[in-house]
Amino acid sequence: MEQNIQTLETSGDVLFMMLGAVMVFAMHGGFAFLEVGTVRRKNQVNALVKIIVDFSICTVVYFTIGYAIAYGVYFYDSAETLVADKQGYELVHFFFLLTFAAAIPAIISGGIAERAKFWTQALAGALFVAFAYSLFEGMVWGQISFLGQDGSWLAGLGGKPFHDFAGSVVVHSMGGWIALVGVIVLGPRIGRWSASGKSTPIPVSNIPFLALGSWMLCIGWYGFNVMSAATLTGVTGLVAINSLFAMVGGILFALVIGKNDPGFIHNGALAGLVAICAGSDQVHPIGAFFIGGIAAIIFVKGFIWEQEKLKLDDVLGVWPLHGISGTWGGIACGIFGQKALGGLGDVSFLSQLIGSLIAVGVAVVFGFVVYKTLDALFGIRLSKEEEMQGSDLSVHRLEAYPEEVMSKYS
Amino acid sequence: MEQNIQTLETSGDVLFMMLGAVMVFAMHGGFAFLEVGTVRRKNQVNALVKIIVDFSICTVVYFTIGYAIAYGVYFYDSAETLVADKQGYELVHFFFLLTFAAAIPAIISGGIAERAKFWTQALAGALFVAFAYSLFEGMVWGQISFLGQDGSWLAGLGGKPFHDFAGSVVVHSMGGWIALVGVIVLGPRIGRWSASGKSTPIPVSNIPFLALGSWMLCIGWYGFNVMSAATLTGVTGLVAINSLFAMVGGILFALVIGKNDPGFIHNGALAGLVAICAGSDQVHPIGAFFIGGIAAIIFVKGFIWEQEKLKLDDVLGVWPLHGISGTWGGIACGIFGQKALGGLGDVSFLSQLIGSLIAVGVAVVFGFVVYKTLDALFGIRLSKEEEMQGSDLSVHRLEAYPEEVMSKYS
Amino acid sequence: MEQNIQTLETSGDVLFMMLGAVMVFAMHGGFAFLEVGTVRRKNQVNALVKIIVDFSICTVVYFTIGYAIAYGVYFYDSAETLVADKQGYELVHFFFLLTFAAAIPAIISGGIAERAKFWTQALAGALFVAFAYSLFEGMVWGQISFLGQDGSWLAGLGGKPFHDFAGSVVVHSMGGWIALVGVIVLGPRIGRWSASGKSTPIPVSNIPFLALGSWMLCIGWYGFNVMSAATLTGVTGLVAINSLFAMVGGILFALVIGKNDPGFIHNGALAGLVAICAGSDQVHPIGAFFIGGIAAIIFVKGFIWEQEKLKLDDVLGVWPLHGISGTWGGIACGIFGQKALGGLGDVSFLSQLIGSLIAVGVAVVFGFVVYKTLDALFGIRLSKEEEMQGSDLSVHRLEAYPEEVMSKYS
Repeated sequence: MEQNIQTLETSGDVLFMMLGAVMVFAMHGGFAFLEVGTVRRKNQVNALVKIIVDFSICTVVYFTIGYAIAYGVYFYDSAETLVADKQGYELVHFFFLLTFAAAIPAIISGGIAERAKFWTQALAGALFVAFAYSLFEGMVWGQISFLGQDGSWLAGLGGKPFHDFAGSVVVHSMGGWIALVGVIVLGPRIGRWSASGKSTPIPVSNIPFLALGSWMLCIGWYGFNVMSAATLTGVTGLVAINSLFAMVGGILFALVIGKNDPGFIHNGALAGLVAICAGSDQVHPIGAFFIGGIAAIIFVKGFIWEQEKLKLDDVLGVWPLHGISGTWGGIACGIFGQKALGGLGDVSFLSQLIGSLIAVGVAVVFGFVVYKTLDALFGIRLSKEEEMQGSDLSVHRLEAYPEEVMSKYS
Repeated sequence: MEQNIQTLETSGDVLFMMLGAVMVFAMHGGFAFLEVGTVRRKNQVNALVKIIVDFSICTVVYFTIGYAIAYGVYFYDSAETLVADKQGYELVHFFFLLTFAAAIPAIISGGIAERAKFWTQALAGALFVAFAYSLFEGMVWGQISFLGQDGSWLAGLGGKPFHDFAGSVVVHSMGGWIALVGVIVLGPRIGRWSASGKSTPIPVSNIPFLALGSWMLCIGWYGFNVMSAATLTGVTGLVAINSLFAMVGGILFALVIGKNDPGFIHNGALAGLVAICAGSDQVHPIGAFFIGGIAAIIFVKGFIWEQEKLKLDDVLGVWPLHGISGTWGGIACGIFGQKALGGLGDVSFLSQLIGSLIAVGVAVVFGFVVYKTLDALFGIRLSKEEEMQGSDLSVHRLEAYPEEVMSKYS
Repeated sequence: MEQNIQTLETSGDVLFMMLGAVMVFAMHGGFAFLEVGTVRRKNQVNALVKIIVDFSICTVVYFTIGYAIAYGVYFYDSAETLVADKQGYELVHFFFLLTFAAAIPAIISGGIAERAKFWTQALAGALFVAFAYSLFEGMVWGQISFLGQDGSWLAGLGGKPFHDFAGSVVVHSMGGWIALVGVIVLGPRIGRWSASGKSTPIPVSNIPFLALGSWMLCIGWYGFNVMSAATLTGVTGLVAINSLFAMVGGILFALVIGKNDPGFIHNGALAGLVAICAGSDQVHPIGAFFIGGIAAIIFVKGFIWEQEKLKLDDVLGVWPLHGISGTWGGIACGIFGQKALGGLGDVSFLSQLIGSLIAVGVAVVFGFVVYKTLDALFGIRLSKEEEMQGSDLSVHRLEAYPEEVMSKYS
């Protein structure tokens, strides 16, 4: 009978992780459609292909390199051995964490859209996941005792280890700040600013697809956060409800600050979800509401500031959305997680601040090294002709709506 | 070991409710796309924004007011206390039931589309969820002993309490009958009937998006019904299979009655699912097939009658789809749930009939009070100019396909 | 306490099967959008309606005929009896396997698109599911001891029974090879080859919808494979990770072989998933990667060969995608499942080869008998006028984008 319970627990854990992995895998479809809707029609195919191919390349490099760096685990035993160990729990744990790792190129993709070279960017994504991401992941969640482990350096300095329950910092800020570097190194799309420096925003193509992407991301995000507990018996309703309230705070604040703009509202939901990941197991739902709401303000104001003041052509606004909001999420966990604000109190403000800032440093340094190196070696930007033509035709030799062009058959 | 089993049960319950909540949350994406596909292109953005914003406002009012009315439960304790109680089960139970509550404005949205004021309708939705819905919900599922509780007034009158397993009446009929009032108070869209009274149907914009919405609703509906068991150990395959057969009955009857029309077929699936909610734990699968099939007839015939005879401009046909089919579902549970028809027999026809009719009364009375009051205070209808321009531009200052308009950048 | 454990196990099984059923049900939405994106705009509505109607018809015939043939199980007891037996586990097991059965017409649909008669094809699908599919299913998974059972004829011949964990052969190859017959009997679409025999490919309509369909299929496929374990305690992480690696192999090989073509890449993912079903519980993840990769080569090369050499107008390429890749999957399970290649070794190459080939025979024979008979009785092809007009208008009397046509209302 004890054996039965053990089998039930293990089976429950495998199912729990597998459901989480599939839910976050589905978010990558969301990344794809968010970008499809935001870029021009001549780059929609490219958006779709980038996401699914980058995901696939990440699977290979995270399996062979990244997961080993972060956790010291390999999968080169026979299938028999792999499945005998807790019904293959570790395999599905890898799957779950892969879907996090692959968010790095998916986030970057939205920032550098419509002008980056396909293969160079695929290589950049692979390098980030294999080394930068997995290194930092290991420092927070894995075997590299530095930030997130009991007894690590930061735990000693700040009183408690760095806490990032579901990746505001490890995933989103890492991706968003690397994207900032990519956007800077690539430069803006042709026509984004006139020769005289006048801002001429490039219109998005398709709000329903943008919204579909946002919906797919929001839905899957409950797996991203809730299943970060890693075991069935670790599940709590608090993580789910905090995700809900941060999303709702993000939507409502974006609605008001963004004056009913559909792009701000649908991305505001995501900003709230980015920010709540870190503290979703620590804060009170009302705290989550404000964490998400403030993230939406950061996104809306940050996007306008980035575009109009800094003149950065971050197409989907991924730096304010994932980068700054992710950093905010890491820090906010140290504020709203305090007992005085209704939180569980298992966090240190100092550790959260320092850990969040170190992530920015790692992202920016790796980002510059990789993008500058690749630019020197292969070039990272499409030629002017390719960009004008659109990457759908220049990279994939097919438009998003071929029948429209060849209408003689219809 | 007993502790282990208890933990497994609680964890299973939290996961069960969380999966249900996410599945029904995803249905709201379905509501959005069903409306996007059915309205004209100039109102697609508005459809998307309405659904996600109304969901968010409902989250706030149901958390602060509605859930307390229905169940007498608040969440103002510290996060520590909230999570200590059964791993936060009550929080995720709230999440699940919120996704039901938020269906009220989502249903109404489809009926009054293309001409209602954004903020007034958001306020109306909030009032319905905070008061009308939660009051009736409390009477059937909650703390207000009146209809659905053992020993309640209706249980005494009808022999058994009113049975609505997953909300044919509590959710769908409530939403659909309120929508009827909204449609009447608002009046038809400009151009729906000519000055001489001639019916000139306004074409839908996008069948694939309509179908996508229907698919998202159908998929999530299995969570809506199956997870209404509320605990993992309460799950039964009967609820799942009855949902399937009602959906299939709805599709096939709509196919025949609606003569291959794609709108009728995709909405016929939904009509079947609306009608089976109440008795999905009571009837035989073959009974479910006919409950769903009859609901599809009600929808198809009701939609034509509503439009052509009553001259009501219910854009998505939500009154026949959710209102009348929901009422039918409540009553059908009292018919097909009888042992003589293969059902479990735990229902009273009289209780089902009375409970279903009371819901209509509550919906219509609250609907008129709220819409008439809001109309007098703020106006509930867009100006003629705003309606002609489309609410995308007049409310959100952005069309659904901006690049098409500003094609000089492409 | 033993009772508690038993209830938890049964509840877990019901939930497990129900989640699997819903995930594979959602794949049918994926079939629909994959076809919507690939056919011309004038046949998009038809694609949507075919999938959902064929699914519904299959539900009825599989419930009344097919499941009884395959497993000898009926559901004509009272609901009380049905639910009393393991909380209705058998009902939800039926639901899960129905979603497999209904893949047969969904697969065929893509091959014969844009020219088949609606009702004749619906009838063909019903006949295949009621008889051909369920007969072969019974031989592999069910009560007809012949191929897949311990002690069956093939187990004696090959040393081990035919192994098809999740249906590479039973589902995909069966559907794909029947589709080949349908494509041949129907003949090509008007205009696909000129009078002089020159190939003039008909452009697809909508890559984003094609990609959406592929995403929905990929996501649901994890339920297709993982939940084929049938009980919660049978779940393993190996099946999930092998599905992942076959998908990734399919994407990357299609990317390279298909030269960045978005259609090949998104279908390459599916080819990989088709091929891994059979051995997903047997092979090593690295084996799965190559099984999927080779399937993508089969698909890309096979599609070009089929179209340009054989001059078969298989619109979605379902013969190479499901048929040949499915057969490859059955055989590959006998190769990569060997212990020498890191597999579990519970397979016989000879049994896999023979079982896979028998499926081809059954599919082709049944296919010809059914299509030739229906062609003689009712005709299986639209008239030239109907095909030119498009089946949306000729069958459903509505285009996919009605507002565009009746633009005077907008």
